[in-house]
Amino acid sequence: MEKPQLPSGTRDFSPQMMLRRKYILNIMESVFRLHGFGAIETPSIENLKTLQGKYGDEGDQLLFKVLNSGDFLSKANEQFLAEKNSKALIPQIADRGLRYDLTVPLARFVVMNRDKIHFPFKRYQMQPVWRADRPQKGRYREFWQCDIDVVGANSIVSEAELVEMYQEVFQKLNLGIVVRFNHRGILDAFLPVLGSQENWNQFMVIIDKADKIGEDGVVNELNIKNLSHAVDAWKWLCETRKIGDFNQTIQALKSYEPIQNESLNKGIADLQLLCNLLGDTSNVQIDLTLARGLSYYTGCVFEVVVNDKRLPEDFRIGSIGGGGRYDNLTGIFGLKDVSGVGVSFGLDRIYDNLDAANLFPEDLTDAPKLLICAMDHESLVYANNISRELRNAGISNEVYPGAVKIKKQLDYANAKGFGYAAIIGQTEFENGTVSLKNLFSGTQEIVEAKQISSKLNHE
Amino acid sequence: MEKPQLPSGTRDFSPQMMLRRKYILNIMESVFRLHGFGAIETPSIENLKTLQGKYGDEGDQLLFKVLNSGDFLSKANEQFLAEKNSKALIPQIADRGLRYDLTVPLARFVVMNRDKIHFPFKRYQMQPVWRADRPQKGRYREFWQCDIDVVGANSIVSEAELVEMYQEVFQKLNLGIVVRFNHRGILDAFLPVLGSQENWNQFMVIIDKADKIGEDGVVNELNIKNLSHAVDAWKWLCETRKIGDFNQTIQALKSYEPIQNESLNKGIADLQLLCNLLGDTSNVQIDLTLARGLSYYTGCVFEVVVNDKRLPEDFRIGSIGGGGRYDNLTGIFGLKDVSGVGVSFGLDRIYDNLDAANLFPEDLTDAPKLLICAMDHESLVYANNISRELRNAGISNEVYPGAVKIKKQLDYANAKGFGYAAIIGQTEFENGTVSLKNLFSGTQEIVEAKQISSKLNHE
Repeated sequence: MEKPQLPSGTRDFSPQMMLRRKYILNIMESVFRLHGFGAIETPSIENLKTLQGKYGDEGDQLLFKVLNSGDFLSKANEQFLAEKNSKALIPQIADRGLRYDLTVPLARFVVMNRDKIHFPFKRYQMQPVWRADRPQKGRYREFWQCDIDVVGANSIVSEAELVEMYQEVFQKLNLGIVVRFNHRGILDAFLPVLGSQENWNQFMVIIDKADKIGEDGVVNELNIKNLSHAVDAWKWLCETRKIGDFNQTIQALKSYEPIQNESLNKGIADLQLLCNLLGDTSNVQIDLTLARGLSYYTGCVFEVVVNDKRLPEDFRIGSIGGGGRYDNLTGIFGLKDVSGVGVSFGLDRIYDNLDAANLFPEDLTDAPKLLICAMDHESLVYANNISRELRNAGISNEVYPGAVKIKKQLDYANAKGFGYAAIIGQTEFENGTVSLKNLFSGTQEIVEAKQISSKLNHE
Repeated sequence: MEKPQLPSGTRDFSPQMMLRRKYILNIMESVFRLHGFGAIETPSIENLKTLQGKYGDEGDQLLFKVLNSGDFLSKANEQFLAEKNSKALIPQIADRGLRYDLTVPLARFVVMNRDKIHFPFKRYQMQPVWRADRPQKGRYREFWQCDIDVVGANSIVSEAELVEMYQEVFQKLNLGIVVRFNHRGILDAFLPVLGSQENWNQFMVIIDKADKIGEDGVVNELNIKNLSHAVDAWKWLCETRKIGDFNQTIQALKSYEPIQNESLNKGIADLQLLCNLLGDTSNVQIDLTLARGLSYYTGCVFEVVVNDKRLPEDFRIGSIGGGGRYDNLTGIFGLKDVSGVGVSFGLDRIYDNLDAANLFPEDLTDAPKLLICAMDHESLVYANNISRELRNAGISNEVYPGAVKIKKQLDYANAKGFGYAAIIGQTEFENGTVSLKNLFSGTQEIVEAKQISSKLNHE
């Protein structure tokens, strides 16, 4: 018999891991709700038409496609089959794909439900997404995104709210972070420097890789792609980035001759309002090189990186969140002039960080308070009745399934972390009592069945 | 521009629907945890090898297959392509499929983690599953199962626990149900009547359809499939089923000559212990015709049907749960002699029933308490500061994003169901106050910013 395996890039979550995941999700959800965000969920399967063309060429390749049911080849083109032309065949044999992110489904949801939604629509969504990427540390093929978006309003109040939500979530999780921000308007201001929109687009793609290839790597790529005339601008960005201080950075932007235009002014005005609205700017930092790859962003962009000394030095798995403003996302589905802004929390990477820094609470447990152990078959009904009464009193407990040897029952209790065992032998059964054992201290006493509840509640 | 659509059989869930789904899930989870069950989750994508051959031929057809990434045709057999042989091609172009239920993944999980698990392993799992079935009322292609299983113990104590969990969940949901039960041993006792294992298997398949085709329909099918010699037994089952009373049914079983054998005795003994262990048998009913299609069941089997007079008469969407004992489930993955028992809750059908009977609590809402409305741009920072302080005090609230016309802001507040609006004009801003409007009564008063929290908490 072959050993069962998991598909590459996917994981099982044990009860212990689930407690920790829920710990993170619950904190997020409490913050989301405190801010008036409501939950939605969308299907895991979307029509490929909905997904394709939204994430760039690379994204299209990383989409998981679902094979059509039944005789899926019946309508397939003979020539494509003979040529083994996989790419051309896809639209003929796969109508659907797996959700790739939560933003495109949100846009589809908003367009399809536009008549029922009260705008501004504040929604959160916490669901898995799938990408056929090469798995590596911190990168999975099935992973969770937790997104918050405000759709149908264009005030920077929303940007400020999202940044504060990042701050509040990570403060509650006790994980040190920095929210980096930038504005597409500032980057757009470099259009005259680049000379054409096409050059500018290429510039964005290249500087978006700066985290991976380094500042000099960007310079090399610019030279290779015939963008040598932008090298000075890039070097200026890198220098100015080092300032760190927001107001000084703004001053530098205002003094850099090549980019003085309307786009810059808009970017600066938005960011100044954003900083004014924030209560705490100690872990918020302007980063002029932050581009965020996705083409739909039009205003502020954000990225969250971990900044916590309790992490091992060699632990580094990229950003744990990001997002930005998009003025035209629903336009791809025919609904124009709906501005939105949203950010994402990467559940799996947050988990990995908390785990590596040992920041999960130690008392996360799903062990019930009490294990009821019947020593003979005849006591099982009695044990079950006690269990039911304790549950009615809100006390979590189990009856060990079967009157097996007491050692086996207590081994289970200890392994799972029960606090108490209520042992029932012939005497206890006849007297309406149990022998209540404290599994931490080892002490044991005879307790009337009806007294167990108050006994446990008082200890 | 084409209108975006959802794939057939899938659904979006709005914030209102999500509140209701979470209401159900939270009740289930609270009961599961009270009984000491821990959560696991498994990937949505499993290797097809793991899934295929586990759900019968029909199941294999209903599996959603995920197309391999990249040049998936490169290794495809030319002849299959030329013949357009879809079925033969599947294993060459699709290595993975979508989760079809939660039981086979559980078996895989147990086998892969056998060294880490403390048996008996009590787990719950609440996740979507996918079946390429024809969608109809109450049947979706993506739907949620909520499963509870006890793996690695063979005591009827576990069966009793699962039945009580059904009772507790539906009592908390305030939905009237009946848990039907039977035992494979009782059905196995009919083997001599059928004459061969093959005949018996066919008999099971046919009587499993009784709910759909009726008693006479079963008789017809038996005749057609050369099982006329079993018609008497079927009629006896239908007659005996009408008794209803458990003890009388057992008496009838013991008096029916053709089935007196070891298998019957085992079935009766198990069911008698089950009924002894249960605290309340008023909504639990033996049903001798209950077969449960899946071949892996070996002991008690269960099915939950709704029995609630508040439902419209024409509302009927089948069972909302079911399960049973399997003595050999992990055997399919090479781990022998692990007995388990489990039942499933069908979230979507439970939802549809509660909805149809109008049984959701009326006060489910995600509207925050307060909307803060700035009437001019200058007040936004002030509004944001108030918002932050109220959140720190645990009061959910929003700042309307942007100082737009007050009517628009109040329309939003009313549509979303806020209780209060804190309106900030020039005067309020200068005096450190807000104009606090009760949106239900319409009354309005000037309140100091610092007093809002205690004001809201006292009303």
